[in-house]
Amino acid sequence: MPQPIEFFFDFSSPYAYIASHLIDDLGAKHGRPVVWKPILLGAMFKLTGMAPLIEFPVKGDYARHDFIRSARLHGVPFQMPDPFPFSSIHAVRAFYWLAATDGQAAHDLARKLYRAAFGGRPIGDARAVAAIASEMGIDGGALGAGIETQDIKDRARAENDAAIARGVFGAPFIIADGEAFWGADRLDQVDRWLTTGGW
Amino acid sequence: MPQPIEFFFDFSSPYAYIASHLIDDLGAKHGRPVVWKPILLGAMFKLTGMAPLIEFPVKGDYARHDFIRSARLHGVPFQMPDPFPFSSIHAVRAFYWLAATDGQAAHDLARKLYRAAFGGRPIGDARAVAAIASEMGIDGGALGAGIETQDIKDRARAENDAAIARGVFGAPFIIADGEAFWGADRLDQVDRWLTTGGW
Repeated sequence: MPQPIEFFFDFSSPYAYIASHLIDDLGAKHGRPVVWKPILLGAMFKLTGMAPLIEFPVKGDYARHDFIRSARLHGVPFQMPDPFPFSSIHAVRAFYWLAATDGQAAHDLARKLYRAAFGGRPIGDARAVAAIASEMGIDGGALGAGIETQDIKDRARAENDAAIARGVFGAPFIIADGEAFWGADRLDQVDRWLTTGGW
Repeated sequence: MPQPIEFFFDFSSPYAYIASHLIDDLGAKHGRPVVWKPILLGAMFKLTGMAPLIEFPVKGDYARHDFIRSARLHGVPFQMPDPFPFSSIHAVRAFYWLAATDGQAAHDLARKLYRAAFGGRPIGDARAVAAIASEMGIDGGALGAGIETQDIKDRARAENDAAIARGVFGAPFIIADGEAFWGADRLDQVDRWLTTGGW
């Protein structure tokens, strides 16, 4: 099997949301599976001393403008979530709860959660996440119970710790053939790296 | 005259250094003059609560790798300065001292200083800046005295304040037709914006 592309994302990251619309096509172009890995930027920020982009004076204003401009460039529907940033922990746990039995469904749920979050439908609490899952035919009650288990909480934390250990500190973060790329605006470089084998 | 592209840069910014190799060609492609404006990121960081990229754990390691990878991608010679980051205040003052009488010479000096800084030749002190200017036929003694005058110190500070007032918070920072772009990896977007008039 060709080596997969790993796509690390936080559900609350606008740039990762934009990249989520593009990454599967990029993988398909190169015949590579794309493994989606939701992470929690909040935990990473504590380690790296970073903070959410929009909390910085001046830079935050630029970011708000650039989110919309970048989405428009790629033809991605975009509505700024409110509140923002929002808690993505329930979404992450739901992903890993589902991934334990059905990787494709987890991937589909992630796409659906993302489109909700950036389409005017908050996903910050467990009830909202379960409701969206239900629309896919997933048992919302089982999901609601599942994401409260220690196993799933531990799994989500372990995945985050593993990402940090591999150098992931932001989102989107893409690892392809051992090479790390940070940012939605680096997908062209990922494409080129996969085409040429590096430069 | 066609509206100029404004190119804001800090002499100590690796990404701005890379962009400095590309921006004049981009301007020429669109028949636009490029106005180079050296800034001092240190002063901006105080206002925005940011810090030099390489000072962040994990992110700093990625940045060091990415500087070199980005330079290689664009065929730009690159040697990591040591010390880094370095003080660029003397270089900035020299630029504005020279710009007061000869804009083209100031531009040429900036290019020469950049190539020195990222070519193994530190430019952090006034003597080094004057020595490099001397090689261009500029009177190093006059430059050394000029950058110590209050007028030039005030000019450099005023330029920085003006940039901040216009939303500049990082480097490279490009303003074209009223639209702001941050980052060497956004030059493709600047190119597209100038080609299409926006999207």
